[in-house]
Amino acid sequence: MAIELKDLTKRADNYSQWYNDLVVKADLAEQSAVRGCMVIKPYGYAIWEKMQHELDRMFKETGHVNAYFPLLIPKSFLSREAEHVEGFAKECAVVTHHRLMNSPDGQGVVVDPEARLEEELIIRPTSETIIWNTYKNWIHSYRDLPILCNQWANVMRWEMRTRMFLRTAEFLWQEGHTAHATKEEALEEATKMINLYADFAERFMAVPVIKGVKTAHERFAGALETFTIEAMMQDGKALQSGTSHFLGQNFAKAFDVKFINKQNELEYVWASSWGVSTRLMGALIMTHSDDNGLVLPPRLAPTQVVIVPIFRNDEQLAIINEKVEPIVAQLKSAGISVKYDNADNKRPGFKFADYELKGVPVRLVLGARDIESGTIEVMRRDTLEKSVEQLEGIVEKIKVLLEEIQDNIFKKALKHREEKTVIANSYDEFKQRLDEGCFVMAHWDGTTETEERVKEETKATIRCLPLDGDTTPGTCIFTGRPSARRVLFARNY
Amino acid sequence: MAIELKDLTKRADNYSQWYNDLVVKADLAEQSAVRGCMVIKPYGYAIWEKMQHELDRMFKETGHVNAYFPLLIPKSFLSREAEHVEGFAKECAVVTHHRLMNSPDGQGVVVDPEARLEEELIIRPTSETIIWNTYKNWIHSYRDLPILCNQWANVMRWEMRTRMFLRTAEFLWQEGHTAHATKEEALEEATKMINLYADFAERFMAVPVIKGVKTAHERFAGALETFTIEAMMQDGKALQSGTSHFLGQNFAKAFDVKFINKQNELEYVWASSWGVSTRLMGALIMTHSDDNGLVLPPRLAPTQVVIVPIFRNDEQLAIINEKVEPIVAQLKSAGISVKYDNADNKRPGFKFADYELKGVPVRLVLGARDIESGTIEVMRRDTLEKSVEQLEGIVEKIKVLLEEIQDNIFKKALKHREEKTVIANSYDEFKQRLDEGCFVMAHWDGTTETEERVKEETKATIRCLPLDGDTTPGTCIFTGRPSARRVLFARNY
Repeated sequence: MAIELKDLTKRADNYSQWYNDLVVKADLAEQSAVRGCMVIKPYGYAIWEKMQHELDRMFKETGHVNAYFPLLIPKSFLSREAEHVEGFAKECAVVTHHRLMNSPDGQGVVVDPEARLEEELIIRPTSETIIWNTYKNWIHSYRDLPILCNQWANVMRWEMRTRMFLRTAEFLWQEGHTAHATKEEALEEATKMINLYADFAERFMAVPVIKGVKTAHERFAGALETFTIEAMMQDGKALQSGTSHFLGQNFAKAFDVKFINKQNELEYVWASSWGVSTRLMGALIMTHSDDNGLVLPPRLAPTQVVIVPIFRNDEQLAIINEKVEPIVAQLKSAGISVKYDNADNKRPGFKFADYELKGVPVRLVLGARDIESGTIEVMRRDTLEKSVEQLEGIVEKIKVLLEEIQDNIFKKALKHREEKTVIANSYDEFKQRLDEGCFVMAHWDGTTETEERVKEETKATIRCLPLDGDTTPGTCIFTGRPSARRVLFARNY
Repeated sequence: MAIELKDLTKRADNYSQWYNDLVVKADLAEQSAVRGCMVIKPYGYAIWEKMQHELDRMFKETGHVNAYFPLLIPKSFLSREAEHVEGFAKECAVVTHHRLMNSPDGQGVVVDPEARLEEELIIRPTSETIIWNTYKNWIHSYRDLPILCNQWANVMRWEMRTRMFLRTAEFLWQEGHTAHATKEEALEEATKMINLYADFAERFMAVPVIKGVKTAHERFAGALETFTIEAMMQDGKALQSGTSHFLGQNFAKAFDVKFINKQNELEYVWASSWGVSTRLMGALIMTHSDDNGLVLPPRLAPTQVVIVPIFRNDEQLAIINEKVEPIVAQLKSAGISVKYDNADNKRPGFKFADYELKGVPVRLVLGARDIESGTIEVMRRDTLEKSVEQLEGIVEKIKVLLEEIQDNIFKKALKHREEKTVIANSYDEFKQRLDEGCFVMAHWDGTTETEERVKEETKATIRCLPLDGDTTPGTCIFTGRPSARRVLFARNY
């Protein structure tokens, strides 16, 4: 099992390869036998579970409930909402048959041609259609509103180029689908949820995000407004990390969902939908990690503290074990997840490299000399700094240190983004800044045509119109036409 | 909104219809637009989440970790294990294409014939094949073992006759897949997990179960031994509630998964798999509920206590609200989930019937007279008994009462099963007892032929060879041939 810990590609050499290497070497995920689909390995899944746990708690605290809707969607549902079908119906997995049979040649199984479905079914790329078809039966009066449902589910989009966590054919996510009596309330919900996502990204993932509104061109298919949170990766590219959509009455109209309002009039229901996915794993990995491996924020690390003993013989180990036992117990009772790795079939150096690769926030090392001096070595993963501390009171120190690491990696990421977020007032300057790996705040004339041409020429897209951005008018860097405000351009994942 | 609470079919009139009615009227689930697939509504999903939470905790306490494997399985994988393909490959959802296109006639979308997959993909009916194909890369030496993975996932089996929760095309479940260095260890794991399921069913669901071994005929396709837990429903039918399989080396051989053992020899890996599904919801509903609606065990009830005020005017309500506030706070801090329903747009009688239908274990009613006398009315859902208690110390009383209800419904179900579990020594007696809705312990000659003929004639199947059953030899009730032991026959869901 001699894992070569040191053959991780360096970020400076090939950032993209570094990411791919890291996902595999840190045991987060791997490619499966099915094109574009990954296996999320236990260590990767443990991080995702921590994210789920916090998000689910936040959803429930804001009045949402979970439910579960079918995986398969009748093909005809997708055509109901005109823009939605354009955006989603094209590259998707289509179920056409419901039976296999033994192959006539005796070799394996083949599709039974007689088991063709009357109407093909699509594996959900997103669930607006099947959910609004369901809501039709749930909603009759304003008293049935609001409906604030979320589901944790797998979805599938037949992507051509896939990358683990960032873009996979099947991915895991949550999708909230809410129904409201008024436009204001639906819009408020969409805003509330993008704020919740931003809060989660910053407080738990330690990933600073820019909240904004998508352009019409980048909007969710079927939405009137799409809110987004955009994060900057270490290479300066943007990663869209969560979206929340104000859907107006589009899906209510497509599925004929009306309610009797307080004025006793029939009206179409107002909607929002919002989601984050296992893509957040990609954001987490790429924001903080380094050439030694993962750097995990303490609040999402499956193991927050690892303790490694240094010993020459069983006698020394026994003494160390005795010393460590109460520390482990105290850390656990303080709610800190800790692993004591006293396995004797791996050398300390191997363990150190492995836990660095896995991004365990704090490493404690205890040797025979420490026992004599009543000390312990503490290493923090974010800065790789070591210090020798008194064993006495170590649990309190670690609690503080974990908070400090959480805070430090957020500040580091924020500083990086702030340094790399610039304004550009000419197209030349714009292109140069993009090549430097920057988020560029620039004027744009508001047309999809300009947006598309800039993308063609520079690969930069408008990530969003930042909610708290500069709204002073100016002139478009590309066409020179009037611009209402600066928008955020970046290359992106 | 006027739900007719009283039009629930009576159990005595039509048990099957009662179940179907109850699932819908108690807001647990409903049929979706997709054949055989249900929508799990928020109230039903909240119960499932509680089950998941406890099971997941129990899995982790016994050393298991979660992971996630692909939804789609290459068709050829199913043919690798000869028995498995017979059992699972037949009725399943087959993905043949990956794209839709606008219909040439301009009406909706059609499957793009050019987007045919080279190899068809199957929506997982269970994941042994894709997981063992993955384990091949994870396992090289005995040091890589054991692997103790579980996944929470949706699966699909194209069932012809479906019933909500009991048998649906898509269902939610967990599937554990473990890999071991020795036969003994894999068998021990399979046993450990059936014991864990039994423990969960009895302690949380309050559903008594019989643990046993399946006959060769009823075994999981590809297993050497299938362990089961069987529960008796109120109509005397059995519901298979969880299974755990000792898979021997069958899947390791099918996917060529070998390891170097401690003797430095190459050997095939030993396996187990085990699962429970949303079917448990069916067991829960059918074991305890009555003609007034659901009866939920307190440990799985989303709301354990509901408080309903009786008031004539806002002034009275204000006084009651003030009195209830600290009770709610105390219940919550005791870890009890409580709802105070002081909505004024529904009459108390409506609320009472609704919470009975939903199976809330304890109802508290507080009126103006109670305020004067310092009392509160307590109703327990399991027996529908009411009592008037002193408000002083009510939280402690409720804690005790919830435990009492949990205990009582378990004992009631156990008593029912014990009364309805009989022995039969002749085929006539056997048939009569089956018609009386009994579990029948009878002698069987050990052949699949007899098993099938008894099923044809009586609709009874061998549910299991109970682990702690009577192993005295005798003569088969059907053929008169020698029998090694009594086995459990019953009609089943």
